[in-house]
Amino acid sequence: MKISDLLNQTSEWLKGTGPNAEIILSTRIRLARNIEGKPFSNWAAKKQATEIFEEAIQGLMDVKTLKTGMVLVLKDVSLVDRQFLVERHLMSKEQASHPENKGVVLSKDEVCSVMVNEEDHLRVQVLGSGFNLRKCWEMADKLDDQISEKITYAFSLELGYLTACPTNTGTAMRASVMAHLPALVMTKRIGKLLEAITKFGLTTRGLYGEGTEASGNIFQVSNSVTLGQSEDDTVEYLERFVKQLIGHEENARRTLLTQQRGELEDRVWRAYGVLRAAHIITSNETIDLLSTVRLGVDLEIIKEIDRRVVNELFIATQPAHLQKMEGKELTPPERDVKRAAIIRTRLAG
Amino acid sequence: MKISDLLNQTSEWLKGTGPNAEIILSTRIRLARNIEGKPFSNWAAKKQATEIFEEAIQGLMDVKTLKTGMVLVLKDVSLVDRQFLVERHLMSKEQASHPENKGVVLSKDEVCSVMVNEEDHLRVQVLGSGFNLRKCWEMADKLDDQISEKITYAFSLELGYLTACPTNTGTAMRASVMAHLPALVMTKRIGKLLEAITKFGLTTRGLYGEGTEASGNIFQVSNSVTLGQSEDDTVEYLERFVKQLIGHEENARRTLLTQQRGELEDRVWRAYGVLRAAHIITSNETIDLLSTVRLGVDLEIIKEIDRRVVNELFIATQPAHLQKMEGKELTPPERDVKRAAIIRTRLAG
Repeated sequence: MKISDLLNQTSEWLKGTGPNAEIILSTRIRLARNIEGKPFSNWAAKKQATEIFEEAIQGLMDVKTLKTGMVLVLKDVSLVDRQFLVERHLMSKEQASHPENKGVVLSKDEVCSVMVNEEDHLRVQVLGSGFNLRKCWEMADKLDDQISEKITYAFSLELGYLTACPTNTGTAMRASVMAHLPALVMTKRIGKLLEAITKFGLTTRGLYGEGTEASGNIFQVSNSVTLGQSEDDTVEYLERFVKQLIGHEENARRTLLTQQRGELEDRVWRAYGVLRAAHIITSNETIDLLSTVRLGVDLEIIKEIDRRVVNELFIATQPAHLQKMEGKELTPPERDVKRAAIIRTRLAG
Repeated sequence: MKISDLLNQTSEWLKGTGPNAEIILSTRIRLARNIEGKPFSNWAAKKQATEIFEEAIQGLMDVKTLKTGMVLVLKDVSLVDRQFLVERHLMSKEQASHPENKGVVLSKDEVCSVMVNEEDHLRVQVLGSGFNLRKCWEMADKLDDQISEKITYAFSLELGYLTACPTNTGTAMRASVMAHLPALVMTKRIGKLLEAITKFGLTTRGLYGEGTEASGNIFQVSNSVTLGQSEDDTVEYLERFVKQLIGHEENARRTLLTQQRGELEDRVWRAYGVLRAAHIITSNETIDLLSTVRLGVDLEIIKEIDRRVVNELFIATQPAHLQKMEGKELTPPERDVKRAAIIRTRLAG
């Protein structure tokens, strides 16, 4: 399997299936793990980092779930390909920008992935479609068990899993959902909800993780507590909160439909019209318009396109995806032209 | 013939035919005439105004060109119908807002029209498609001759035709063209040209005449001198100037096509896309987008629609036209919905 093969498959989390997929795009479980007796990645000398890398890759290649997938040694992966993996949510931006002694191991369907030598020696990820915290956690737990048969983790009976950053120590788990909340934004209720999220000990981020802004009305909501509660507790707590969040978004959508139907339809059709017509379009404008179109599809205002087509466009229109499809590097203005062309083609049917 | 019959016909000046129709929408000749021995309309007592009105209408009904058309006694014409006539450029706003003792007489094809008791007793108009100053002047001259057989004009051998406002005295002719200058606006060259227009003793106005702003990149250019030159001189002078103006706009269009083709195409297709998609749209946004689409049609970027369809939409989307089509009064928000629906239908095929 090669990186290019991914171009022809839809990431599981973009399929637009799974519970509450009209609001929750995807669910992610991420576990931070470190190898016993080795310094954390950022403290490791070069030689140690290489040893960690080799030990980790060796172990992961033996893991059943990952065996049929791909092992990527990042220093051998081009910048565009690394960005491509970031856009598919298979790797962090930090991991992509410093490839030395770093790697990513993927399952064939991209649902499971492990970053090697990111902040921690291993960052195990399960990324699924829709609102599926429990299932994703079970998969992550299973994958974690498989890996622990090959690699001995740094673990303290008192603290739990030891991590490079103390805020992750304990379960070292971050459970998160990617929520599409356009109606809460349009009805200006989002502000209070984001405040509540923080008050409830949860964190919100943008589409591409820490330090990125929420664009396209997409918000990542995750736990911030990892110490003093079990993974099941964390999952249950987040699940309960996200259910409420879904309820609020559904309410806001109903409000829009009953009180501002005309304006909403106008907005949705205009966004769709611009996407189908533009010949030059930036990534930011694309994401904002796609968000509005997705709302229109979810509310059955637009019936002629599938949610999956819209979901895929969120990723297909990102810089590295455009360049992979074109098979060569593109300048930002060239990308704006290519992006518009791809959108027109896909939305034309 | 009834006012409603006009709904089913395209005004000559909207047909998009005639010389240079890709830049000059229409040509208009307007002659101010007053009946000998009567006070000007605004100075006339009510009884006198009625006498003027009756004498004028009586005379005009006998004129060959107007016989098969329509005689409209404005106090019997509804407000919406009066606005409708303004939108079709058959009547001034002032005439529409004070209907007492006022009238309009039209030829069947709307090319010739005469306002009665506007600022002057008679305002004779010939309105044709494209850049046709000489032909329109010949028609106006002929119509004027016909009318003068029925009505004796106030005329001074020394000054020429006497008019209510001294700035019109002399030929009492205003010759004008409606120029669509989007490329001069986009390339920011329009400012200097408007300055030049004034310096050359000409006047610019918006789509609906004196005191209206230029919207949709449409500028009305007319002579301001009426004294000390013949009608032929005026026509020739304006003609020469407008030819240059056309040259400048053509240059600007070429510049856009060669230096910013991508941006131009994007702009054109987006405007077209929004018009085909919107479900709520104001009159101002409509005119701006139609202007861009018309440029796209003229430059053969959009090939699937006819210039005439775009021209007609400029007028069909005006408030009174919408209400006439709907057959009832509409509030502004209702008009924005109806307008969007009509545009979608007409641009769909």
